[in-house]
Amino acid sequence: VQNQLFNFIGGNTGVWQVIKMETVVGAPLAQVERVEIIEGELTSVWQDFVWSLSGVTSYGRYVTRAEKDLLASRQADLNRPEATCAALIPISKSEIWWNLAQDERRAILETKSEHIKIGLEYLPAIARRLHHCRELDGEFDFLTWFEFAPEHSEAFEELVVRLHKSEEWKYVVREIDIRLVRADQ
Amino acid sequence: VQNQLFNFIGGNTGVWQVIKMETVVGAPLAQVERVEIIEGELTSVWQDFVWSLSGVTSYGRYVTRAEKDLLASRQADLNRPEATCAALIPISKSEIWWNLAQDERRAILETKSEHIKIGLEYLPAIARRLHHCRELDGEFDFLTWFEFAPEHSEAFEELVVRLHKSEEWKYVVREIDIRLVRADQ
Repeated sequence: VQNQLFNFIGGNTGVWQVIKMETVVGAPLAQVERVEIIEGELTSVWQDFVWSLSGVTSYGRYVTRAEKDLLASRQADLNRPEATCAALIPISKSEIWWNLAQDERRAILETKSEHIKIGLEYLPAIARRLHHCRELDGEFDFLTWFEFAPEHSEAFEELVVRLHKSEEWKYVVREIDIRLVRADQ
Repeated sequence: VQNQLFNFIGGNTGVWQVIKMETVVGAPLAQVERVEIIEGELTSVWQDFVWSLSGVTSYGRYVTRAEKDLLASRQADLNRPEATCAALIPISKSEIWWNLAQDERRAILETKSEHIKIGLEYLPAIARRLHHCRELDGEFDFLTWFEFAPEHSEAFEELVVRLHKSEEWKYVVREIDIRLVRADQ
């Protein structure tokens, strides 16, 4: 697990063209045309943007060894040429969630909500990278980035609907659903 | 759980006077005379220091509900007038540790090492605040700050020795043990 910082920069430049931005719950995020993803600390070159969301990859907080191995055996990398569709979903969870103990959060996330199990069903079609930002000075707790081929768009909708119906999602107090397509300039 | 950023600033000013600095394992940290603790983002006022270590308080990654309640019922606050002794112990764990799954880390930390159970034995005498910095751009994974009265110094030594002997500590690749006394200027 090398921690890597990624910045999602919303504005009018970038490889990813925004095709839809929906506020699912909580305060909205300003509409943008494009999103650029930059790894590492942002330099002063990046000033002309509408918003910039940063998060770091980190170790899994909930997966058991069996789940971790299963995920590793099935998941696909990002940047597959055929995966021209993407979603960026920033979320924050409530203080009630963060005040739960580890066993309680695991019980909600997996025993009741099957978050990991549901995600596994969509591998390798839907590639995913989770970025943590609760420990950073940002406005969200997590940024999840998904990539998939156009023919898996319906599967992705289904995944989102299933997670939204879960017990875990009752603790989500802010969520923005940003859909994008690769549009190399 | 409100995340709070704390900066430990090593130099020649500050309320806490350094009485001993020992490199337990890994690269050393420059010797300083005093440490100041500043909450929140550092302003430009803070420039004349030798090192500055930052970390955020966060939710517990391992405690169960029963352990969390037990800790809450026993632990003391920081800043007790009688607690004039302190320790700042920055540590980093190995990549092997961070690549373990949640159940494996919990098994090492508590089932094998009894980290939480041992810590409970020293409450309320030894007050403690854990700061996470693995997700920040720092050189350590954790900064732990302890405060205790002089008559509990021996108990604190015993706590440190017991943790050092644990299975969990085999994964600690860097550790600095900084001891301090309150010396209001």
